[in-house]
Amino acid sequence: MLFERLKEIRPVRADFTEMAQEHLDHLTKPKGSLGRLEEFARRLVAITEDKRPVLDKKVVFTFAGDHGVAEEGVSAYPKEVTPQMVLNFLNGGAGINVLARHAGSEVVVVDIGVDYDFGAIDGLVSRKIMRGTNNMRKGPAMTRGEAEQCLEVGIELSEVFARKGYKIFATGEMGIANTTPSAAIAAVLTGRAVSEVTGRGTGIADDVLKNKIRVIEDSIALNKPDPGDPLDVLAKVGGAEIGGIAGLIIGAASQRVPVIIDGFISTAGALIAYCLEPLTKEYMFAAHNSVEIGHRVMLEKLGLRPILDLDMRLGEGTGAALAMLLIEAGLKIYKEMATFGDAGVSTEKVR
Amino acid sequence: MLFERLKEIRPVRADFTEMAQEHLDHLTKPKGSLGRLEEFARRLVAITEDKRPVLDKKVVFTFAGDHGVAEEGVSAYPKEVTPQMVLNFLNGGAGINVLARHAGSEVVVVDIGVDYDFGAIDGLVSRKIMRGTNNMRKGPAMTRGEAEQCLEVGIELSEVFARKGYKIFATGEMGIANTTPSAAIAAVLTGRAVSEVTGRGTGIADDVLKNKIRVIEDSIALNKPDPGDPLDVLAKVGGAEIGGIAGLIIGAASQRVPVIIDGFISTAGALIAYCLEPLTKEYMFAAHNSVEIGHRVMLEKLGLRPILDLDMRLGEGTGAALAMLLIEAGLKIYKEMATFGDAGVSTEKVR
Repeated sequence: MLFERLKEIRPVRADFTEMAQEHLDHLTKPKGSLGRLEEFARRLVAITEDKRPVLDKKVVFTFAGDHGVAEEGVSAYPKEVTPQMVLNFLNGGAGINVLARHAGSEVVVVDIGVDYDFGAIDGLVSRKIMRGTNNMRKGPAMTRGEAEQCLEVGIELSEVFARKGYKIFATGEMGIANTTPSAAIAAVLTGRAVSEVTGRGTGIADDVLKNKIRVIEDSIALNKPDPGDPLDVLAKVGGAEIGGIAGLIIGAASQRVPVIIDGFISTAGALIAYCLEPLTKEYMFAAHNSVEIGHRVMLEKLGLRPILDLDMRLGEGTGAALAMLLIEAGLKIYKEMATFGDAGVSTEKVR
Repeated sequence: MLFERLKEIRPVRADFTEMAQEHLDHLTKPKGSLGRLEEFARRLVAITEDKRPVLDKKVVFTFAGDHGVAEEGVSAYPKEVTPQMVLNFLNGGAGINVLARHAGSEVVVVDIGVDYDFGAIDGLVSRKIMRGTNNMRKGPAMTRGEAEQCLEVGIELSEVFARKGYKIFATGEMGIANTTPSAAIAAVLTGRAVSEVTGRGTGIADDVLKNKIRVIEDSIALNKPDPGDPLDVLAKVGGAEIGGIAGLIIGAASQRVPVIIDGFISTAGALIAYCLEPLTKEYMFAAHNSVEIGHRVMLEKLGLRPILDLDMRLGEGTGAALAMLLIEAGLKIYKEMATFGDAGVSTEKVR
């Protein structure tokens, strides 16, 4: 199923991009003067192949998972915080809830790998592939089969929500220790040194950062993930929520739904999707530039320019929710502004 | 009246900033992880001296004026576009109308110096001080008295709208050729060469840019504005809408109302206000980094870091309307997120 979806992804059509820019150039403003807002509008038209795209139903997917590598002392917070935060999401009290409400978006919380039994609980989408990954310092985080299942969870959710009429997706995550597998993925898939892509996550001290780098180096040395095989990388040094995000992106691209990539961990998922099929990139919007040092490295590899730079490092989808507001602003410009003709404004330049 | 208001401006209170940060640090996120959103919340609390600020009524002021220096061939568009765009604003078809609606803000269009008789027209705030400035290449753009009147228009409007219950202001403008006086103000008040602060405005070609720089240099050489006397600078090489913006900022600061500064021209107004009273800066939010090269120079002089960087160069208040959405996001984080205690999330760091 994964490989079928990958084959369905097509390039976005340049003729739609040009048609959109042609309309933008007739609006009452100097050509190009709304900068990236115009880019957002052009891209939405081209991605959806719709001259008048509608973004009425929006959704942020927050994938939650735990990480065996947490036992190596790589995070400032105990693992119990993952399920605690999942409950906070369901109660509407977390950062992503506030910002998604502000952006007029829903939040869908997906348990794809939390090491906790939530039982039957309202609002939680249960797609648990495992109760936390294995500790990658001692062996592969997942089997190849599990990694594929995580991707398929993301693809399936993208299909369910596209069918329900959602028009734009955003990615987010929660998982104590998940900057560790994300940095491992960044190092393997960009070829950069671990120390160049590893940051402080929720806020660890110097000695913990040193240990974190060593843990990642050890994990890569032990598992030998193959940079030419993204599924192998995801399985050996990745995580369930990262796989879910990669799958969501693949599903979005195969259905021509724009998808907003949040921060560091989401971008590790985006990089997995991109390495599986580079055309997925044409459906992505990079929400923001996170404080995590490896984020910029991955965005460069993807060739995506972030929309925001607000010193954020929370994850959950918070940057993506904010970027949603700006992407939608671009679409409103495209759809709601008067043309020179409508408004009786001179188009003649004097020089 | 101007000098009375200037004397009323006080520093924002550090104890409110600290109180706000204290609350932010109890919310369910790692400390500081929402970056500049936290900064926005802190500043709103401190500016308003209100533990629970409300931003229900928001307004963008778009000041319109004409410029005698347009006859020197400094703009790509004819002067008639200023009143045409004012009518477009009143009809709701311009960029600022679309983006202010998106941000839940009203737009107030102020004729402070357009060279056109609008007659009685619905929705236009008529505070015309002149029908366009004089050509500053041939003499002062305005008298000192006119410059002071422009500032007082801005102050009065800020008082009227604060009384009506508006909680946050944003600046904007329209005026063919107004990047020319803005660059002149930037050069005089930052001490930089004219060529370092002069850009392409609505999109002029190389030869027109060369001419524009020469016109500004000539105007400064002829009028000799005194960098130590911001009112003299505004009068000799400024413009009516720039004065209106400076006045609005002074009025906002004297009433403890936060004010969002749009792009290049608005920042020239902000620089006038700042040079009259540096404390005004504590009430300003810099919306975005414009494409105009002189913008960054002025923001550095002001010590303000822009919120957005989207390659925009339209003016009208468009960048400020977008920034409003992000500033409000910061406030919602502060007011709506659960604390660790509420949510039952562990605050204990493991290391």
